[in-house]
Amino acid sequence: MRLVSWALASAIIASLSLASCISPAAAESIESATRKEFAKQDRACFQCHRSLNPGLAEEWRSSAHAKKGVGCYDCHRAEKNDTDAFEHNGATIAVIVSPKDCARCHQNEVDQQKGSHHAKAGEILASLDNFLGEVVGGSPAVAVGCFQCHGSTVKALPNGKFDPATWPNTGIGRINPDGSAGSCSACHTRHNFSKAQARQPGTCGKCHLGPDHPQVEIYQESKHGILWEANKERLNLDRKLWKPGVDYTAAPSCATCHMSATRTQGVTHDVGDRISWTLRPAISTKLNMVVFDDLSKMDVPEGQALPNVGDERKGSDDKVRKVTQVFTWQQRRERMQDVCTSCHAGGLVNGFYKQFDDLVDMYNDKFAKPAAAVMAELYKAKKLTPAPMDEKLEWTYYELWHHEGRRARHGASMSGPDYAWWHGIYEVAKTFYLHFIPEVKEVAGEPLATELMDKYVYSQPGHRWLKEGMSKDQLQKIQDFYRQRYGDQK
Amino acid sequence: MRLVSWALASAIIASLSLASCISPAAAESIESATRKEFAKQDRACFQCHRSLNPGLAEEWRSSAHAKKGVGCYDCHRAEKNDTDAFEHNGATIAVIVSPKDCARCHQNEVDQQKGSHHAKAGEILASLDNFLGEVVGGSPAVAVGCFQCHGSTVKALPNGKFDPATWPNTGIGRINPDGSAGSCSACHTRHNFSKAQARQPGTCGKCHLGPDHPQVEIYQESKHGILWEANKERLNLDRKLWKPGVDYTAAPSCATCHMSATRTQGVTHDVGDRISWTLRPAISTKLNMVVFDDLSKMDVPEGQALPNVGDERKGSDDKVRKVTQVFTWQQRRERMQDVCTSCHAGGLVNGFYKQFDDLVDMYNDKFAKPAAAVMAELYKAKKLTPAPMDEKLEWTYYELWHHEGRRARHGASMSGPDYAWWHGIYEVAKTFYLHFIPEVKEVAGEPLATELMDKYVYSQPGHRWLKEGMSKDQLQKIQDFYRQRYGDQK
Amino acid sequence: MRLVSWALASAIIASLSLASCISPAAAESIESATRKEFAKQDRACFQCHRSLNPGLAEEWRSSAHAKKGVGCYDCHRAEKNDTDAFEHNGATIAVIVSPKDCARCHQNEVDQQKGSHHAKAGEILASLDNFLGEVVGGSPAVAVGCFQCHGSTVKALPNGKFDPATWPNTGIGRINPDGSAGSCSACHTRHNFSKAQARQPGTCGKCHLGPDHPQVEIYQESKHGILWEANKERLNLDRKLWKPGVDYTAAPSCATCHMSATRTQGVTHDVGDRISWTLRPAISTKLNMVVFDDLSKMDVPEGQALPNVGDERKGSDDKVRKVTQVFTWQQRRERMQDVCTSCHAGGLVNGFYKQFDDLVDMYNDKFAKPAAAVMAELYKAKKLTPAPMDEKLEWTYYELWHHEGRRARHGASMSGPDYAWWHGIYEVAKTFYLHFIPEVKEVAGEPLATELMDKYVYSQPGHRWLKEGMSKDQLQKIQDFYRQRYGDQK
Repeated sequence: MRLVSWALASAIIASLSLASCISPAAAESIESATRKEFAKQDRACFQCHRSLNPGLAEEWRSSAHAKKGVGCYDCHRAEKNDTDAFEHNGATIAVIVSPKDCARCHQNEVDQQKGSHHAKAGEILASLDNFLGEVVGGSPAVAVGCFQCHGSTVKALPNGKFDPATWPNTGIGRINPDGSAGSCSACHTRHNFSKAQARQPGTCGKCHLGPDHPQVEIYQESKHGILWEANKERLNLDRKLWKPGVDYTAAPSCATCHMSATRTQGVTHDVGDRISWTLRPAISTKLNMVVFDDLSKMDVPEGQALPNVGDERKGSDDKVRKVTQVFTWQQRRERMQDVCTSCHAGGLVNGFYKQFDDLVDMYNDKFAKPAAAVMAELYKAKKLTPAPMDEKLEWTYYELWHHEGRRARHGASMSGPDYAWWHGIYEVAKTFYLHFIPEVKEVAGEPLATELMDKYVYSQPGHRWLKEGMSKDQLQKIQDFYRQRYGDQK
Repeated sequence: MRLVSWALASAIIASLSLASCISPAAAESIESATRKEFAKQDRACFQCHRSLNPGLAEEWRSSAHAKKGVGCYDCHRAEKNDTDAFEHNGATIAVIVSPKDCARCHQNEVDQQKGSHHAKAGEILASLDNFLGEVVGGSPAVAVGCFQCHGSTVKALPNGKFDPATWPNTGIGRINPDGSAGSCSACHTRHNFSKAQARQPGTCGKCHLGPDHPQVEIYQESKHGILWEANKERLNLDRKLWKPGVDYTAAPSCATCHMSATRTQGVTHDVGDRISWTLRPAISTKLNMVVFDDLSKMDVPEGQALPNVGDERKGSDDKVRKVTQVFTWQQRRERMQDVCTSCHAGGLVNGFYKQFDDLVDMYNDKFAKPAAAVMAELYKAKKLTPAPMDEKLEWTYYELWHHEGRRARHGASMSGPDYAWWHGIYEVAKTFYLHFIPEVKEVAGEPLATELMDKYVYSQPGHRWLKEGMSKDQLQKIQDFYRQRYGDQK
Repeated sequence: MRLVSWALASAIIASLSLASCISPAAAESIESATRKEFAKQDRACFQCHRSLNPGLAEEWRSSAHAKKGVGCYDCHRAEKNDTDAFEHNGATIAVIVSPKDCARCHQNEVDQQKGSHHAKAGEILASLDNFLGEVVGGSPAVAVGCFQCHGSTVKALPNGKFDPATWPNTGIGRINPDGSAGSCSACHTRHNFSKAQARQPGTCGKCHLGPDHPQVEIYQESKHGILWEANKERLNLDRKLWKPGVDYTAAPSCATCHMSATRTQGVTHDVGDRISWTLRPAISTKLNMVVFDDLSKMDVPEGQALPNVGDERKGSDDKVRKVTQVFTWQQRRERMQDVCTSCHAGGLVNGFYKQFDDLVDMYNDKFAKPAAAVMAELYKAKKLTPAPMDEKLEWTYYELWHHEGRRARHGASMSGPDYAWWHGIYEVAKTFYLHFIPEVKEVAGEPLATELMDKYVYSQPGHRWLKEGMSKDQLQKIQDFYRQRYGDQK
């Protein structure tokens, strides 16, 4: 790393006009005189922080921001009455740079992010869905766990400080003191904000990992991830639009498929735009998407009535919004398939989607729907208390769909066979047969147990083997095969 | 990545004669006139697919194939009566390029692969061993799980399409429409087919990972994997023979030990050639190897009679084969030790093998043989139904050897201490003592339970502590140590 | 990799005077005539081993050692009466190069390592703490598992050989034939001994990984690890002092925070110097540090009396040591915070530590202390035998604190939210509520069960929800939220 002198850095800054990638409106809004004032302020920030926190300062200095004359004060400046503003050596600033701040230059990106599930990730924690975290675990676990990915509702204290129970975190749905939702630095890491870094699979993997949604592990074990690892230096990660098939061809990252431009599509900062199935809930559905005039979005499951463009809808906040666009799940899928065909022929893409759909349908029909129906009956029959997670069966059911069932579905969605099978359906089947069913029988008692089993489980062709057994002939074949393969050990 | 123009690429192609690495016979079989015809065809393929699927086309263009004039039609051409052939813009082609196709130029490699366990990986799925996948899980899970590594029996549909339940996958033992077994692109990924990529540990790790055979995780945590990660740029991964100690010295990958040439051995595409133990079944044995005149191979466990070179054997397919070579397990081990000594002195290599052998022997004697014997007695006494996986104890036993026992053995085989112990023997012991034994007692009932325990478990010196307890003196020492180390907490 | 000729290498060696980084005393102790004798010996070693084990020889040749004229004999020479010395082609050498040998040139580093927990890692295995390994598992599992990280007590056999039950391993606390404790090559891997390699996170990750202390996995999922992966080529890993904020700014590795120099601190080879909490035992405490005149160290938990500098203490070995330095836990923490501020502003650092402390305190109060107290009562009441790990509850308790509780605490300590929550507190809570409590109730029986629950569990505010349930209103909110988020499936 070459540490250029401040003189040189500021010469570079001076020589650069505002670059073309920022919103023209924003560029115009900062007049030349103001710009000079800002640059003077930036120099003061840099000189002090270069000494106090050189890593922070030098990372900025090697950033595109520095090269284009965007300095500390451009991002950290605040209005005196902002709840997190404070006076700092003569300047009014805030520590948190929110999407609202980033939008001064990057309006399009912030607009795209606004309607995404990412922007809503903090809601889960403002609600009672954090029962598991707050009550079963404990608040401090929420601060170092949940908040770090989902984001907290940041509480500002006097003098620009924050309640440490709510900050630091760069959770992607963080609700900032200015009311905006999100944290651009969740992916565009401070203070370099490098596009190349944001495009790394590990960036997404900070949160999309682990027992309940191991997307990055699945990617890493897929051919996509294997080729990424083998070909990093051939990927031109710093190209502007980073189109697969144009700017690089050796391997995709998460961003390639879910965000980056293609030959026919623009970049999107709504990672859900190209997704046709939701794999999050207990039972998966295909999702149509409705876009409103305030850029918020709504998912409408396949089979439910879709509004028309121009319709008005009242939200849960009583605000009326007008529908500006409607995308069917098929259109969302076509957007993804457009990415696929950058590198793959159509036959392979269609075959892949058929296998993926079949797996999700099988998971739904054989495991998810029967289990959900049985749970509903048990609550209805007051065999389970209404309180969540105070009974073993509730944990078993939760892991069945939230952990294991998701792993299977995600594994199929991104070609990770080990997750689709061993961490997925194998575990789903094991939990279903060895834990869920016996626990249901115990909780339900007779005659309800038999009734539930007959109605919801044995009615499924995929479970008949358990009741009806296998023919002698089938058993002999299995035994012969095992003997031939593994010897007479069993 | 530099995207050279088609004109330049085709000039390069034209200026290159057929390269020396392909089989001379194959080279001769394609006459000059044919070659020109092919090149014309290739150009048509490329021009269209560069537009449709640029990633696919450009990866080929930067491949060694392109540099040596091997184009689309060389690999994808088919005969009109091939089951998966179809007419495509005037050419008769097939989507799947099978080992039979690759053998036109790479006969030696395909011959080596023919006798390997890799080539038989699809058999597991044509048999009833896929009971777990098909019946307990469900067919769609087999397609996105098992098939992706093992390979399917691909079913061709009209017009060059395939049954999506059987394709796409590049499973290493895939049974192709032309009857050949395997998929070269499992490792030599389309459409670059890079040697350097095939030599990456992640390439093997696509399938050799996970709860049941985590070879790549073990490698990654071993010194070998740590040095790979730290020294990638010093490894000359694109050298032709890639001999350790000659072409590179900083770190080995999976290929180094199991496949690549050494100073005294050639490359092998049978990854089992240098392996002396089988760590796959419930109980490990050392394996001698018999090679037949059709290049098929047979493993013969240590202690069983070996045929002589020249003997004839009738296979399960009633075909008579002649034995052409016999390798003892010691000879297979010597081949591996030859790799080891490229970098390690003999004393270390011998010490390593002693520790490895001891671990496998201990696992066999203390856990695997007693558990297998107990299971056999329970089946014999009809305490378990003959159907597999319909009783909890069958799952417990299965994970004991198939998951945990393998992890321990693989951990020892490749110097991954965390897998040998925490994911291995620790889990084996936990499952054996806390789950297997209590479940056996319940299933067997008295007096059989006591009989089985005495005969198979307590007879093992390694289990006596459980029955006989510990002396007061021993206990005091343990307690004193804990107190000193962890305070009075326990 | 360029393989320079021996002639060139020896010219390089000859032209180099002893480099400045080795201890001057050591340099002087090897006179010029001796040096020539050594170089002649080295040449003989090299010429033979280049042929026998070229990887070993060539890695040395590209090492800093080779460049500075430090050859085979400098490190491997031995005295005739050393227990592991042997005659080898006219030279008296030993295979193991111990910290005592390395100290000939690297005295400071060895002195720093002497008082570290690393140097004591082998003690666990010479004691009865290896009950789990030796008795429950089995000795061969100790050799391929525990010893590979902790180190064994190496037993020398005649002729320079070693008992294979105790060697090979490079365990960090290995007790060598010369009585010294440690293995420098645990991190500075043979025979290149590269600083850049030692600084890689994977180097520490060889041992700091897995279910019981997944430090490297936590690092990898943290922003620190993500930035490392994205910025490797910007890190100047071969700089001498490798100071964050000076030599590099893009990302830290384990070494950055725990070992490397900063703008105000020197390098330390005691990885505990900057650590304020111990996260190893069942219940965490903050630790003050006492340094003695023989460089050994002692941790004194917060709240216990600290000695003064100059005090004398008799150790468990009856040796009297004088206290030379005392560091409070606050001072240890300040050392770490000095590293943090190389890149982060103070507010973030303080917020981070508050969240970390809160998590550890919550874990202690809600889970660790109640569980430890209950276990102690059960032993006292003879409801559990004094033998360890012969009862299920002992395994449950062990994994609660040794595996899951550590993962939560380590996750919080290094900003890995998935480990802090999903692999951490979520698992702690699950084990505590679904396994520990029911097993305690069964083992204790009434009335002891109720007494223990009331005294140790329900007395904790964090567990009251379990006894007192939730209000109707609270429940309705949860149900409404679930319905809105996941539909009417549950």
